[in-house]
Amino acid sequence: MMGFVRVRWQNCGRKIRFVQTRLYQNILTSPSSLVSLDLPHDHTWPCNSSSHETPHSNHIPTLHTAKLLDGNSISTEIKSKIAAEVARMKKCLGIVPGLGVIMVGERRDSQIYVRNKILACDQVGINSFVTQLPTHSAQSHVSKAVIKFNKDPSIHGILVQLPLPQHLDEEQVLGSVCLEKDVDGFNPLNIGNLAMTGGEPLFTPCTPKACIELLTRSGVEIMGKNAVVIGRSNIVGLPTSLLLQRHHATVTIVHAFTENPQRVTCDADILVSAAGVPNLVRGNWIKPGATVIDVGTSPVEDLSCEDGYRLMGDVCYEEAVSVAAAITPVPGGVGPMTVAMLLLNTLHSAKRVLNFI
Amino acid sequence: MMGFVRVRWQNCGRKIRFVQTRLYQNILTSPSSLVSLDLPHDHTWPCNSSSHETPHSNHIPTLHTAKLLDGNSISTEIKSKIAAEVARMKKCLGIVPGLGVIMVGERRDSQIYVRNKILACDQVGINSFVTQLPTHSAQSHVSKAVIKFNKDPSIHGILVQLPLPQHLDEEQVLGSVCLEKDVDGFNPLNIGNLAMTGGEPLFTPCTPKACIELLTRSGVEIMGKNAVVIGRSNIVGLPTSLLLQRHHATVTIVHAFTENPQRVTCDADILVSAAGVPNLVRGNWIKPGATVIDVGTSPVEDLSCEDGYRLMGDVCYEEAVSVAAAITPVPGGVGPMTVAMLLLNTLHSAKRVLNFI
Repeated sequence: MMGFVRVRWQNCGRKIRFVQTRLYQNILTSPSSLVSLDLPHDHTWPCNSSSHETPHSNHIPTLHTAKLLDGNSISTEIKSKIAAEVARMKKCLGIVPGLGVIMVGERRDSQIYVRNKILACDQVGINSFVTQLPTHSAQSHVSKAVIKFNKDPSIHGILVQLPLPQHLDEEQVLGSVCLEKDVDGFNPLNIGNLAMTGGEPLFTPCTPKACIELLTRSGVEIMGKNAVVIGRSNIVGLPTSLLLQRHHATVTIVHAFTENPQRVTCDADILVSAAGVPNLVRGNWIKPGATVIDVGTSPVEDLSCEDGYRLMGDVCYEEAVSVAAAITPVPGGVGPMTVAMLLLNTLHSAKRVLNFI
Repeated sequence: MMGFVRVRWQNCGRKIRFVQTRLYQNILTSPSSLVSLDLPHDHTWPCNSSSHETPHSNHIPTLHTAKLLDGNSISTEIKSKIAAEVARMKKCLGIVPGLGVIMVGERRDSQIYVRNKILACDQVGINSFVTQLPTHSAQSHVSKAVIKFNKDPSIHGILVQLPLPQHLDEEQVLGSVCLEKDVDGFNPLNIGNLAMTGGEPLFTPCTPKACIELLTRSGVEIMGKNAVVIGRSNIVGLPTSLLLQRHHATVTIVHAFTENPQRVTCDADILVSAAGVPNLVRGNWIKPGATVIDVGTSPVEDLSCEDGYRLMGDVCYEEAVSVAAAITPVPGGVGPMTVAMLLLNTLHSAKRVLNFI
């Protein structure tokens, strides 16, 4: 069992690749949010608790139980507002927003994530269009699919489901998505505008936006607080830290080179973990009374589940719940909120291009 | 005297403005590097030592004296290498790099900074072209000057001397500098590529690059170290933090909303201060043995000096020198290194466009 989630990262030139056992090729970390692309040179987290099994806790349980930051319920609320806006747009203009999804290959987890996004589009009345390409598609074919969506006026947002097969240049593919439809917000220009004071990104990346929404809608003060983000991936850790900073938190990013991560996390009023390492964050990594946002969703084999695996967060929930003031569950925390933010970005994109206020 | 450096910041819409006494309008913070553009809403640093006078130290002096990180000497070394490369380019291609400088108004400090940059260009053989515009120039006139430089093939780098007069939209002017000549690296696309793992900015902003050069050339290890950056301006604090992170430091940004800055800075192995507040960093803000990079250069009135003022850093040097392992002086630390990095970026730009290896 231990070998299942034991992963390491390898830097192959400019591309960080996932080195894994063949057996589990199809169910890895969540594509939309959670891989720590930034763990280079086989450098692993200085922690020996990266097991998906619930650790034998040496933490003394107390009666305290953290407040649950319920992503399902908050995202349902947001989606109902999106649905109302989509309906209003349809009534006024006869047009609804459209999301184009490009999926290359047949990863089982990616299929499930795409299915969930399509279902969510249906729920709110957003049109969705999926281009499914075979695993061995050439770079040019994938780019053609992106360009087709770029040109299609009925599509207001484009999502390239990650990870792409390793023979494809992910950076090049993502870079070909036109800025006005980059609802994932992964374009460097978007990230630059997110980073800079006064900058106005066209889209804020979905998972970071989900984290902030969870905090603000739960009444957690960000301004002036110590916030620690574990992981510095381009799609989650980095933009989350930038967003927290724009909300005037004092932000520290912990990564695989951090000498004593626990020492840093113990000082966090807000702790966001996006490392993709199950049970990395133990109870004694958390400051009593902190708010913990668990972005990690590592799939671990579980034949009792319908899909053959279950998702595990970075945080040892059983320990954290007795230390933190508030915590997101996995699943049901950041995940559904990320999907809601994707819908919101698609709606905003359509409103912008149609000049619909 | 106290009123002289007492400044506060005001957020006027999207533009952060400097509020100052009329008396000292002409000698403010350094334009090329050091203003904390991000201090919004009159929020001031939670510190009462922001005087330009050397504080009455309650710090007990010791025999320890920090190693001086001598920006003058290191930059001289770098400039001599640049000069050799420029000479080689001239010999091979008959062309030398060109730097275009746009200056609006007659701020005395800006004039001095521009003069120093022109002198430095002369020293290494880079051609420099200065467009001097009157203080009340219209936005369109400034943009025209930028566009002229954009089109001129003999110009490989464009520098807009900051700050611009307040009636001008600084963001718009800087945004009109074409990406290939943006040797200051202020374009959001550059910043995005600086922030993202694997991103390749065309230019790294000069002052942040100067800080890293000072550290690496002085043998200071960055990887895995705790680095704290004080200030989060778009031109210094933010890109410096991003650059330190790309060198695998664990980075925290302290800003005006940070509740207890001293507590954070005391944990820094590398402390970079870019707040523009004289004597903000006292001896007891510094971890014994830390490396301190002082980016602050606030001009304070001193009639005994040739220019009528002298530059003061953010760091109380007299106290810091007995606590830190290494420290940059002000002046003679980051300042001359920033100029050297400007020359280096201009050289690289020319090499890129001329395909000269």
